[in-house]
Amino acid sequence: MMRMVDVIDHKRNGGTLTAEEIQFFVGGVTDGSIPDYQTSALLMAVYFNGMTDSEQAELAMQMLKSGDQLDLSDIPGIKVDKHSTGGVGDKTSIPLAPMIAALGIPIPMISGRGLGHTGGTLDKLEAIPGFNVELTESQFKHQVKAIKVAIVGATGNIAPADKKIYALRDVTDTVDSIPLIAGSIMSKKIASGTDALVLDVKTGSGAFMKSEADAKALATALVSIGQNVGLQCMAVISDMNQPLGNMIGNALEIQESIDILKGHGPADITDLVLTIGSQMVVLAKQAADLDEARGRLQAVIDDGSALAVFRQMIEAQGGDGQVVSDPTRLPQARYKIELPAKTAGVVAKITADELGIASLLLGGGRQTKDDELDYAVGLELHKKVGDPVAAGDSLLTIHSNREAVDDIKQLLYDNIEIADDAQPLTLIHEIIN
Amino acid sequence: MMRMVDVIDHKRNGGTLTAEEIQFFVGGVTDGSIPDYQTSALLMAVYFNGMTDSEQAELAMQMLKSGDQLDLSDIPGIKVDKHSTGGVGDKTSIPLAPMIAALGIPIPMISGRGLGHTGGTLDKLEAIPGFNVELTESQFKHQVKAIKVAIVGATGNIAPADKKIYALRDVTDTVDSIPLIAGSIMSKKIASGTDALVLDVKTGSGAFMKSEADAKALATALVSIGQNVGLQCMAVISDMNQPLGNMIGNALEIQESIDILKGHGPADITDLVLTIGSQMVVLAKQAADLDEARGRLQAVIDDGSALAVFRQMIEAQGGDGQVVSDPTRLPQARYKIELPAKTAGVVAKITADELGIASLLLGGGRQTKDDELDYAVGLELHKKVGDPVAAGDSLLTIHSNREAVDDIKQLLYDNIEIADDAQPLTLIHEIIN
Repeated sequence: MMRMVDVIDHKRNGGTLTAEEIQFFVGGVTDGSIPDYQTSALLMAVYFNGMTDSEQAELAMQMLKSGDQLDLSDIPGIKVDKHSTGGVGDKTSIPLAPMIAALGIPIPMISGRGLGHTGGTLDKLEAIPGFNVELTESQFKHQVKAIKVAIVGATGNIAPADKKIYALRDVTDTVDSIPLIAGSIMSKKIASGTDALVLDVKTGSGAFMKSEADAKALATALVSIGQNVGLQCMAVISDMNQPLGNMIGNALEIQESIDILKGHGPADITDLVLTIGSQMVVLAKQAADLDEARGRLQAVIDDGSALAVFRQMIEAQGGDGQVVSDPTRLPQARYKIELPAKTAGVVAKITADELGIASLLLGGGRQTKDDELDYAVGLELHKKVGDPVAAGDSLLTIHSNREAVDDIKQLLYDNIEIADDAQPLTLIHEIIN
Repeated sequence: MMRMVDVIDHKRNGGTLTAEEIQFFVGGVTDGSIPDYQTSALLMAVYFNGMTDSEQAELAMQMLKSGDQLDLSDIPGIKVDKHSTGGVGDKTSIPLAPMIAALGIPIPMISGRGLGHTGGTLDKLEAIPGFNVELTESQFKHQVKAIKVAIVGATGNIAPADKKIYALRDVTDTVDSIPLIAGSIMSKKIASGTDALVLDVKTGSGAFMKSEADAKALATALVSIGQNVGLQCMAVISDMNQPLGNMIGNALEIQESIDILKGHGPADITDLVLTIGSQMVVLAKQAADLDEARGRLQAVIDDGSALAVFRQMIEAQGGDGQVVSDPTRLPQARYKIELPAKTAGVVAKITADELGIASLLLGGGRQTKDDELDYAVGLELHKKVGDPVAAGDSLLTIHSNREAVDDIKQLLYDNIEIADDAQPLTLIHEIIN
């Protein structure tokens, strides 16, 4: 009979766990037969000794099998999805999903909520009056069949082993272990029933993976797990040293998503949407190469069809579709307060996570899972790293429902640096496939 | 407020825990406020990242302070004790304690029981009819004052934090971590109220520390903790590749202890008794150097005074003192079965732990804490490593209370190697002070 202490020993001594050992571990976590203290000892041993590609894939598969899997086989076509490791101002999924759907590619997207300084796609969509992210499985499938796209929260009992393991990692300081992160992400993504997946791994001060090396290691692990289980997989490593796009905040990010779909979004986020999107189109075999795919995506922006699908999706999910032509129908903040540059120069740094916290403190984010959101508030950046500024120029507009924002201003000034000179940041660091 | 997850993080990232962090940890373990899964995560991080001398000393001190301490200050003189990390045939304490006491040095000894292939001093003493190891604290002190020596089991609530941590280490594969082993040993030894301590760290196939490097690291850690808390401390690294002395088994080891006290014990165990004993005498300031100390110890063997003290101690603790002159009063096994050498040559290997297991299987040891012991059984070696043998010579005598011992014979043959040539093993590897 297998004993958990021997599994721990095997990993602690630098060995490669067998499929049976990983199955024993995940099974025991799921049914409660392995006590938490043994689980946490193994997690710490994995933190120190890592996992091979095949161990990581087995871990993800076993966590996947611990719960329900969505069966999307009755939706015709190669279904694609994306996942971002989380960043500030990252609304990529929102314009991208209707663009992909406009090309006839099914994109059944299961998204998450925000916690801490990063936002969540579901929260942003709920800024649209009436938008419902809680569809039943049959409503979800029906909508994807009908209009190729739906963005919803997870339903059912997805990867319960991951839920238990994640809760333990949080309190045992084993969160930042690449095999554990990768297993957690991929078990949930594979459970969602997609055929192809593009991963957006953020790197930089506002990202979980601060260094490019760590981001690359995570991206490689994610792609390897996906490929190991027969999922079409690619990854982008993208910059999160400054916020993505100009808008931070739920309704503001919907507004920016509409701008992107209309072809006049900020350059950086538009580029990221097209980069990730082209990978999805190639994985869905709807273009021979990334260039052709990018051209097709640009076309559904230019001809308005992507925006039309976004409106369809909003309406299919109970939301006010008119926001796409009249974004003032989105929640609006009472106060718009400028943040003037104190000196002239070039913007050298905009610390992404601290700006995310500023938005959170205005009411746009959650400090704990049960916090209510103020959809209207947030930040509207007028300058990005590399932009010249004159003293007195507005760096950004604070959208607030409270008049006194000196605390927020201080936080922002502390986290925006103006220097004599600075270069714009490179957005796309690397493509992993 | 301190959070356990931050303490784990500090150690996981290779930092040195502060005294406050160690105090917080041990306090939380003791009062139950820190859950086991966080404790085991920290233990695994300590396994990988180690501890500095001062961290180890603080850990031992905090575990010590988690429970009761014996106050022996009303016993005059420098009180000495010894501790062995455990070996097969290691009865050193039994002859040594009366030898030290015969020099007028108080030796209030708190010992343990055996588990697995190593024996325990208390079990061996209980092979003497009537011997009682469970004295009250006041009986214990009274006896040490009267005759300078007592050997008893732990009383009171000694290092409860260590008890909890040890139980977790056992099931989370964090037993063989030097700082944790050292903290566990030293917290209990310091709690016993001794002034000076000699540590016998075993190395070799039958020891917990298989390699000399590990044994040296543990010895250094133990001595460093002791010195850090003001205890006089020295250590011996001694060989445990083959059993110590010739006798394995509870009554047999009492018989061998009496032989040693009479001056005709086997050379190896006698040498170890004198080596450790001389250190104790020096630490107790009853000799200027190790040579003088060794001479004094030899004298109490030669003049019979050490044997007389042993008899006094046995009788003070309710035992049959006549065993010292008539060892046949000890439990005797029904069957004595020889193990003839199958070939001629030189004994090259006698695997200590497997011989310990043979004795255990005869009934002389415990596989679980609640097993009853058969005091009479065990092994009596006639050959040690380096000894020449002719085919048919008895390698050892099996003392058994069952007639059929083919399983034991097979195990013994598998673990005694005869080669063309072999050198005797070096017993004392190193002295650490």
